[in-house]
Amino acid sequence: MSARPEARQVLSNPGSARVTRVAGLARRQARERHGRFLAEGPQSVREAVRHAPEHVLDVYLTEAAAERHREILSQARRSGIHTHLVSPPVMAAMSADAQGVLAVVGLGALAAPGRGRGAAGGSTAGSVEDWSQALAGARLVAVLTEVQDPGNAGTIIRAADAAGADAVVLARGSVEATSPKVVRSTAGSLFHLPVLTGGSLEEVMGALRAAGLTLLAADGGGPVDLFTADDLLAAPSAWLLGNEARGLAPTALEQADAVVSIPIFGAAESLNVATAATICLYASARAQR
Amino acid sequence: MSARPEARQVLSNPGSARVTRVAGLARRQARERHGRFLAEGPQSVREAVRHAPEHVLDVYLTEAAAERHREILSQARRSGIHTHLVSPPVMAAMSADAQGVLAVVGLGALAAPGRGRGAAGGSTAGSVEDWSQALAGARLVAVLTEVQDPGNAGTIIRAADAAGADAVVLARGSVEATSPKVVRSTAGSLFHLPVLTGGSLEEVMGALRAAGLTLLAADGGGPVDLFTADDLLAAPSAWLLGNEARGLAPTALEQADAVVSIPIFGAAESLNVATAATICLYASARAQR
Repeated sequence: MSARPEARQVLSNPGSARVTRVAGLARRQARERHGRFLAEGPQSVREAVRHAPEHVLDVYLTEAAAERHREILSQARRSGIHTHLVSPPVMAAMSADAQGVLAVVGLGALAAPGRGRGAAGGSTAGSVEDWSQALAGARLVAVLTEVQDPGNAGTIIRAADAAGADAVVLARGSVEATSPKVVRSTAGSLFHLPVLTGGSLEEVMGALRAAGLTLLAADGGGPVDLFTADDLLAAPSAWLLGNEARGLAPTALEQADAVVSIPIFGAAESLNVATAATICLYASARAQR
Repeated sequence: MSARPEARQVLSNPGSARVTRVAGLARRQARERHGRFLAEGPQSVREAVRHAPEHVLDVYLTEAAAERHREILSQARRSGIHTHLVSPPVMAAMSADAQGVLAVVGLGALAAPGRGRGAAGGSTAGSVEDWSQALAGARLVAVLTEVQDPGNAGTIIRAADAAGADAVVLARGSVEATSPKVVRSTAGSLFHLPVLTGGSLEEVMGALRAAGLTLLAADGGGPVDLFTADDLLAAPSAWLLGNEARGLAPTALEQADAVVSIPIFGAAESLNVATAATICLYASARAQR
């Protein structure tokens, strides 16, 4: 027996107010105004429904997708999430990248309680003051400062999740965590660990220090070689990662406990920031375990 | 004193045959027919001129870019490369991503002699038979099999360069190494190490074995843990990397000497292929040094 959406009828008017409202969440202003964002595609929706069901407001599926992804539908219904069948034109009007499955998620999902690994997690953590619970007991955190490319930000969140990080922080000036490209690039990891946003670099560094974390700046010119720094990496630490072109701000470089570089063995001038973040986070994971 | 292009006049007709011919190299068929491709932007052009000058046919610059990047102009002229000043509309017609600097490069640059680190490098290496020289003495090679995303392919080439790999192989079925997005994503690394293309997976594996390389398949389900495999990694080896969605083909998994997985410490299901490649290549570099 297959789970079916509660409402048997299929939403079929691509011009309806609901469709316009959902599609509008592709825009930052609408996300901020309504406090919600989109999870597009089966992988994102599956992970949202599985890991942050209390924040998923609606799931939309085409009939074909509902057939193909019955587990999403069952799980959503078990969690009491509103599910809706929609016609392919309605889905297309809502999102170009949903592959038939779309969820509207509340912003609270980002720092949702219960998903922190180090500790019990905080409230919705909309401001730095609320981060202490999410960061309590954390051993590994990735901090994006002025990372601008959505694909890079998403890839770093995914890598941080894989490396077992306790949280990711996007300091003010970085790309928005809920922009559709970021959400897609995380491949569901956005819903696996607290993603804290809204603090300035200074505020973020203060909160990380207060949580007992060593601040490690990743910088190609850093005097500390990543591969001979296991003692340093073994301590609970936060990796500061900078802008694609400019790198880290002087403040970050000056105030970090260590500025660490990844050795370059070939002729490359530098590494892509997501690549560098991955190597740093996995080096920490390896040293800490 | 600043170097000036030999021809003082500025190419200013965006509709000229030359402009159309250069712009056409954005298309695969034109690249294959004419045996040349584009390096766009200062970083790519600088590295092409520096590391593969004998394959750079023409460099085009706007007057502003020529002023801003005098070192590219000087180096190109010292190497006897034809340099041309163009008007901004001509540059815009040639490429949307050149930031004022563009080079037309011969396909021979991919596997250019003298750029191999392990050995003397081969000829233009257009077929697998010609790879033996490029692969002789190699200790670390990255092999892309059916990697489809240009950004991933470029990022892997850049990471392989950084990790000190001796060559990158793009087996048939992978995205084309000279597609503009791949070239851009390599950030110049395309010109730092031999990039071998044109062989089937079977042919590639044969050539790698003949060069004495251990074949390591990167796969999330692999029984060998990357972080406890330093003895394996210390041997000269080639990393086989698969498609973004499907992973490696059964042939690759069956015929590899070991199937190696990166430990996932969090809830992520998998890693992006470029991320995984980076971790594997750096683990090898670390074990080999």
